[in-house]
Amino acid sequence: MNRIEVCYSPALFDLYKNKDAYVVVVDVLRATSSICTAFSHGVSSIIPVKTRDEAYAYKQKGFLVAAERDGIKLDFADFGNSPYNFSKENVFGKHVVYSTTNGTKTIQIAAHSKGVLIGAFSNISTLTNWIAKKNAPVIILCAGWKNKYNIEDSVFAGALTERLLATNAFYTDCDSAHAALDLWKHNKHDLRALIDICAQRERLRKNKLDDCIDFCLQLDSCNVVPIFNGTALVNAEI
Amino acid sequence: MNRIEVCYSPALFDLYKNKDAYVVVVDVLRATSSICTAFSHGVSSIIPVKTRDEAYAYKQKGFLVAAERDGIKLDFADFGNSPYNFSKENVFGKHVVYSTTNGTKTIQIAAHSKGVLIGAFSNISTLTNWIAKKNAPVIILCAGWKNKYNIEDSVFAGALTERLLATNAFYTDCDSAHAALDLWKHNKHDLRALIDICAQRERLRKNKLDDCIDFCLQLDSCNVVPIFNGTALVNAEI
Repeated sequence: MNRIEVCYSPALFDLYKNKDAYVVVVDVLRATSSICTAFSHGVSSIIPVKTRDEAYAYKQKGFLVAAERDGIKLDFADFGNSPYNFSKENVFGKHVVYSTTNGTKTIQIAAHSKGVLIGAFSNISTLTNWIAKKNAPVIILCAGWKNKYNIEDSVFAGALTERLLATNAFYTDCDSAHAALDLWKHNKHDLRALIDICAQRERLRKNKLDDCIDFCLQLDSCNVVPIFNGTALVNAEI
Repeated sequence: MNRIEVCYSPALFDLYKNKDAYVVVVDVLRATSSICTAFSHGVSSIIPVKTRDEAYAYKQKGFLVAAERDGIKLDFADFGNSPYNFSKENVFGKHVVYSTTNGTKTIQIAAHSKGVLIGAFSNISTLTNWIAKKNAPVIILCAGWKNKYNIEDSVFAGALTERLLATNAFYTDCDSAHAALDLWKHNKHDLRALIDICAQRERLRKNKLDDCIDFCLQLDSCNVVPIFNGTALVNAEI
């Protein structure tokens, strides 16, 4: 039996980090949903970068760049952070450089673990099956909002915890996993109502970027497990 | 209307701190429940200290010292961290020096705010009424466990959020407040079952210190609002 833990903020990750654990990075509105969409549309790799300057340097070298801060596309970027940007037409066969407010930074802080995986509602079952085949603990790392807790990533952490526990290969003694599970169980039948009270839903609405919420909450719409190879996210063999 | 925010970890408090806000420190199992008990039994003041060495230095000066680490009473201390230690016989009219794993440190990190208050299920209504008379925002600061999230403090944060919102003098746009409220609403009718899955409940059980759990979950058993004056906790006028 392997342990599940949930970390609600990248700023707390030092308390959880474990080189023997898989880390599932979660930023469902919108980075990790967009990454899963990109892989389902045949992107070759996604190179997460922390800073605007790094993203700009890649752009100068001719890379396709997806980059935003606080929801708004950076001026030099080819596109922003909506999953709709990661269409087959835009990304098939390409290497995409990607920089977002929370999600892409979070991937990098988890690099010294057994593996960094990308989790979203869209790949939750494929991800569960992939992890269940490994004999290793799992840390679900919520990207949050500027290091604060957020509901959308936490409720996903609860959904993934429920599925992992159901494989009977995992247990949890982690209070944040138990609380995430409680949040998921009490809200899964009307997830949209829960998301409607989130701060991020309001941020997206203000910027007219909330058209993707239902898409991001749809379960099992794709069959990919993006994994970080130290430099880029690539398709894990499934 | 003033804002309610909930901070799940002392390690995240820098993201929330606000000199114009009241900070309610919560460590229901057991520090803040014990502090409320002490004031209801007539303690004159409680001096929270961070380190074992500081507590020891006070002991040498002749102070009464309550101190524990990981649940276990420090060898030189007069007593540990159970609310039962803070009996009228032990504390009436006295100044008590107090040092615990999480709670007393958390009081000190919040010092640069409008006021630091002590919250527990035992004083929740008195505390709500006291805060509602002030025209100021509130940050509910969970002591957690060694900077990790814990359920017992979070569910209390939800209970206090519910009561503050019911006064119609507060609003919240904080995801952790909404999640704490959800945890409270779905578990308040069987709080003991929720607490039974907490990591802290297991720690207390292992050390045979879990006899106080029902006492710590009892609502409105006392009528005190402990407030930090920069050096010590004293009784706020109610």
